[in-house]
Amino acid sequence: MAEEKALVGIIMGSESDMPNMEPCMKQLEEFGIPYEVKVASAHRKPAEVHEWASGAEERGMRVIVAAAGKAAHLGGVVAAYTPLPVIAVPMKTSDLGGLDSLLSMVQMPSGVPVACVAINGAKNAAILAVQMLGTGCDECRKKISDFKAKMAE
Amino acid sequence: MAEEKALVGIIMGSESDMPNMEPCMKQLEEFGIPYEVKVASAHRKPAEVHEWASGAEERGMRVIVAAAGKAAHLGGVVAAYTPLPVIAVPMKTSDLGGLDSLLSMVQMPSGVPVACVAINGAKNAAILAVQMLGTGCDECRKKISDFKAKMAE
Amino acid sequence: MAEEKALVGIIMGSESDMPNMEPCMKQLEEFGIPYEVKVASAHRKPAEVHEWASGAEERGMRVIVAAAGKAAHLGGVVAAYTPLPVIAVPMKTSDLGGLDSLLSMVQMPSGVPVACVAINGAKNAAILAVQMLGTGCDECRKKISDFKAKMAE
Amino acid sequence: MAEEKALVGIIMGSESDMPNMEPCMKQLEEFGIPYEVKVASAHRKPAEVHEWASGAEERGMRVIVAAAGKAAHLGGVVAAYTPLPVIAVPMKTSDLGGLDSLLSMVQMPSGVPVACVAINGAKNAAILAVQMLGTGCDECRKKISDFKAKMAE
Amino acid sequence: MAEEKALVGIIMGSESDMPNMEPCMKQLEEFGIPYEVKVASAHRKPAEVHEWASGAEERGMRVIVAAAGKAAHLGGVVAAYTPLPVIAVPMKTSDLGGLDSLLSMVQMPSGVPVACVAINGAKNAAILAVQMLGTGCDECRKKISDFKAKMAE
Amino acid sequence: MAEEKALVGIIMGSESDMPNMEPCMKQLEEFGIPYEVKVASAHRKPAEVHEWASGAEERGMRVIVAAAGKAAHLGGVVAAYTPLPVIAVPMKTSDLGGLDSLLSMVQMPSGVPVACVAINGAKNAAILAVQMLGTGCDECRKKISDFKAKMAE
Amino acid sequence: MAEEKALVGIIMGSESDMPNMEPCMKQLEEFGIPYEVKVASAHRKPAEVHEWASGAEERGMRVIVAAAGKAAHLGGVVAAYTPLPVIAVPMKTSDLGGLDSLLSMVQMPSGVPVACVAINGAKNAAILAVQMLGTGCDECRKKISDFKAKMAE
Amino acid sequence: MAEEKALVGIIMGSESDMPNMEPCMKQLEEFGIPYEVKVASAHRKPAEVHEWASGAEERGMRVIVAAAGKAAHLGGVVAAYTPLPVIAVPMKTSDLGGLDSLLSMVQMPSGVPVACVAINGAKNAAILAVQMLGTGCDECRKKISDFKAKMAE
Repeated sequence: MAEEKALVGIIMGSESDMPNMEPCMKQLEEFGIPYEVKVASAHRKPAEVHEWASGAEERGMRVIVAAAGKAAHLGGVVAAYTPLPVIAVPMKTSDLGGLDSLLSMVQMPSGVPVACVAINGAKNAAILAVQMLGTGCDECRKKISDFKAKMAE
Repeated sequence: MAEEKALVGIIMGSESDMPNMEPCMKQLEEFGIPYEVKVASAHRKPAEVHEWASGAEERGMRVIVAAAGKAAHLGGVVAAYTPLPVIAVPMKTSDLGGLDSLLSMVQMPSGVPVACVAINGAKNAAILAVQMLGTGCDECRKKISDFKAKMAE
Repeated sequence: MAEEKALVGIIMGSESDMPNMEPCMKQLEEFGIPYEVKVASAHRKPAEVHEWASGAEERGMRVIVAAAGKAAHLGGVVAAYTPLPVIAVPMKTSDLGGLDSLLSMVQMPSGVPVACVAINGAKNAAILAVQMLGTGCDECRKKISDFKAKMAE
Repeated sequence: MAEEKALVGIIMGSESDMPNMEPCMKQLEEFGIPYEVKVASAHRKPAEVHEWASGAEERGMRVIVAAAGKAAHLGGVVAAYTPLPVIAVPMKTSDLGGLDSLLSMVQMPSGVPVACVAINGAKNAAILAVQMLGTGCDECRKKISDFKAKMAE
Repeated sequence: MAEEKALVGIIMGSESDMPNMEPCMKQLEEFGIPYEVKVASAHRKPAEVHEWASGAEERGMRVIVAAAGKAAHLGGVVAAYTPLPVIAVPMKTSDLGGLDSLLSMVQMPSGVPVACVAINGAKNAAILAVQMLGTGCDECRKKISDFKAKMAE
Repeated sequence: MAEEKALVGIIMGSESDMPNMEPCMKQLEEFGIPYEVKVASAHRKPAEVHEWASGAEERGMRVIVAAAGKAAHLGGVVAAYTPLPVIAVPMKTSDLGGLDSLLSMVQMPSGVPVACVAINGAKNAAILAVQMLGTGCDECRKKISDFKAKMAE
Repeated sequence: MAEEKALVGIIMGSESDMPNMEPCMKQLEEFGIPYEVKVASAHRKPAEVHEWASGAEERGMRVIVAAAGKAAHLGGVVAAYTPLPVIAVPMKTSDLGGLDSLLSMVQMPSGVPVACVAINGAKNAAILAVQMLGTGCDECRKKISDFKAKMAE
Repeated sequence: MAEEKALVGIIMGSESDMPNMEPCMKQLEEFGIPYEVKVASAHRKPAEVHEWASGAEERGMRVIVAAAGKAAHLGGVVAAYTPLPVIAVPMKTSDLGGLDSLLSMVQMPSGVPVACVAINGAKNAAILAVQMLGTGCDECRKKISDFKAKMAE
């Protein structure tokens, strides 16, 4: 597996989501999966998100992780512009606890799915990303099997 | 007020939203406000939505009405691409009653507002559109005042 | 644009809403839009709210922003007495997180809309107010376009 | 107890609430309590509601029952204009089941209470009205005691 | 109005509800309405609640205020044993914010109403109690009118 | 196991709950567990419920199943009067889907538990009742094991 | 009653649930009921949970208490592998307050019930466990009756 | 891509979920992706689910789709036994609309993710499955790109 080229692209709507997403990055590092990180709001910087998402496949990425809160459109917007699977991480919110982020992400209409994990489920997003890579990568499946075995001890 | 040129642009995520949005069109007609209608999903046809929203101001529109259901991103996506005010109409859904559409539309993050009305509030979207036009149009404010007076009888 | 005369009227149900609404005022100032502020509860001071709302148009206001919490009727009550568009800002509540304020504001019945923004969405209320003014004011639309361009950088 | 003069005033936001409120009227009739019925929306006919509520006490009424749905402000608006106790009946809604009506009615801010009953709780509103009258009317308390005894058989 | 005899009986499910209910007592004192306070859980001390509620009318009480949290049955249980009107105050809870208390109190089945106020609405419970007394007491209605006038200043 | 004496007492708040509770009775019959059925509302017939619950243990019952809807206090009220375990079955409601019944039953305060099953979970209430009996009855545990084995085929 | 052999098995999904479950253990100790404690996640250690649950009956346990949070499957998973009654304790969560844990536990499908108590209802789980044991143990019923009598003082 | 060997395994908790899951199968067929279907409840047939899930990777499957309703544990239970990515489809429920199924599936605890799609999102589950396969299969990514292009027309 190439170490230089990012296989997973992590995008988040705001710099303030970074601490919540760190478990995702840390877990990918533990799995040895190269990733890149992008901060750009689907609403404040739509063109930048558009460009980043549209080019993700060509730049070598195979999975996208998108984290956002409130009316969290980032996952769906990215999914609209790429054939890659998009894992959505709804951010906890201070008023509705993240129910708004969750419904805004998971209830995607027919034709453009996202793969939603739990509210603030950053670490699980990383594990799921490697599971997705595992559909075409024996080593990745092995990493997950080892991870699960270790967890079960 | 020019009769040929649409002042209000109505966009909806799916052809199936049309019956729910008809009270909006009918009300605009009663107010004598020219409008145009566009059906395009933010997720299935992102480029088309992008193009339509980006050009709305230049084509003479002054208010956008966006109707969508479930993870209803259409309002926010359109708002990202235009300086015009965007009225969001959350569609009722068969499972969560429209709470998903509502939260996906109203909980917009800082910087990019939408003006959300009630679930399936199509008629109110038309009235609000004319109220918005009324900020710079005495005749429109008069129409609303007359409408309210008639309603109060 | 006249600097002395308020174009936007901000009304809130309680003095305690003031800190939450400051981002609204600050944003209007950054846009150079004159506003006035009123504190009056729809329930505790109905006559005062009635009088203020009824005279808003004549005093030169073109947009109202109404902030309230819990069974937040202020937006609807003001909307009942004026032809101007009313932007409702549901205040976060300590028990239900603001879901009560949100539903009390956004679910307006047919005939009298309010334009609801996110829970505690004070800054967005200001942006939306200027977008509304922009329907009849090229300079306001320009301000929003510039604001969006700057945000996208 | 005077038979001609209404002791209970029933107000509802829309003609369409009438069938849901009939159990209230029927129950008051069974208790022999004179009532009057008014249909007027707090948003569409604010002045009419204002006038009706302001004069209720003087016209001899002692309890108000207010029924409304969605952003159900009627109870609160009436309560703002009268010293009489106001019983609020939240109407079931087709999208959120009446949770919106309930929260809009029950979560009244400090200083202006309403007495909220269950969603579509029209019959209970009548019983509660007679219980309220019972605080100063031995015969009314007796009616309730008899009603409860009969129910318990 | 007799000063020694309690007209309002306040009952709460737990000693821990006392601080939340103090605004109720304070407000009754400001209105000069004599009250008594009882702490007894409907579930832990059912016989004691039964006895207290059954004898309330005879002991001279005319209104009951019942405060409880979670599966808050106290209002309904008291209402089952007395012809007096029962004002229910749902207590805020640390997990669901009081939505559980609210629904457990307000959704009373047909035949046995309670008059529900807002979550933690202790002060409003006192005002509503006096409004109820006002149905048969001109002085009480006068107190409320004065209170409202003062609030409106 | 004595066939004449009821081991399980089923109580429901209203005759209208009967069809929803039939799977409970049918399942108990399939297990060969004698039961009795009582219809009495905790609110409308409190004394009757009190008497029935207080005597249940002495009459030989070992488990109670209580079904009710809306502000569903029946489970808690019965639990207050008996040392027997009480299984609560929240009834589906036409407005809030049964969320009100569920929270009113499951959120019991400290000291007086009920064993809550799913909304309309009548059949599961029967199975749970037999599991409870199984703590002191080898034959009952065997019945459950056989039931589970059959289900797994 | 044998003191050495655990009659109640307490299982929890995570070490972090321990402080929340301590009231359960303490209450069982006050009742003099021997118990054992197991920490194992249904998802991270499925085989361990499977083995523990499958052997519980044979090892002499008669009631299981299962505590877990979020998508709280532990109760259902254990119930699938044992004929014993399973008491589920939904843990409070930091985002949705425990509504997720509650629905994941209480809404069990037909055939495999759990007995759900309140969110964080650890003490009540212990009381309910003894009530269940009481179906076949006069001494246990006596303990509950004494406990209730003491509580009522 | 081998046509005989299933790459996607679809498992559902009940035969009654079949009609809701048909759009998933149909969509996989349109993509030409071989799949197998299994009906087995995590609660009623735990051993069968365990065996099926544990052997899925070895039998050649690369993605699992798990559909279930209410306390929908199937996704999590399967995920516990396989390193493959699991797509969870929460089924709409007749009482809570599917909010229970959704939270039971999406809120998975740390270490064992599932990829949740919308309530009844069967078609999207198929698209997401192919997107996952696309991480290691250029042809699959091409199928998705073509699908998206066609949808955008």
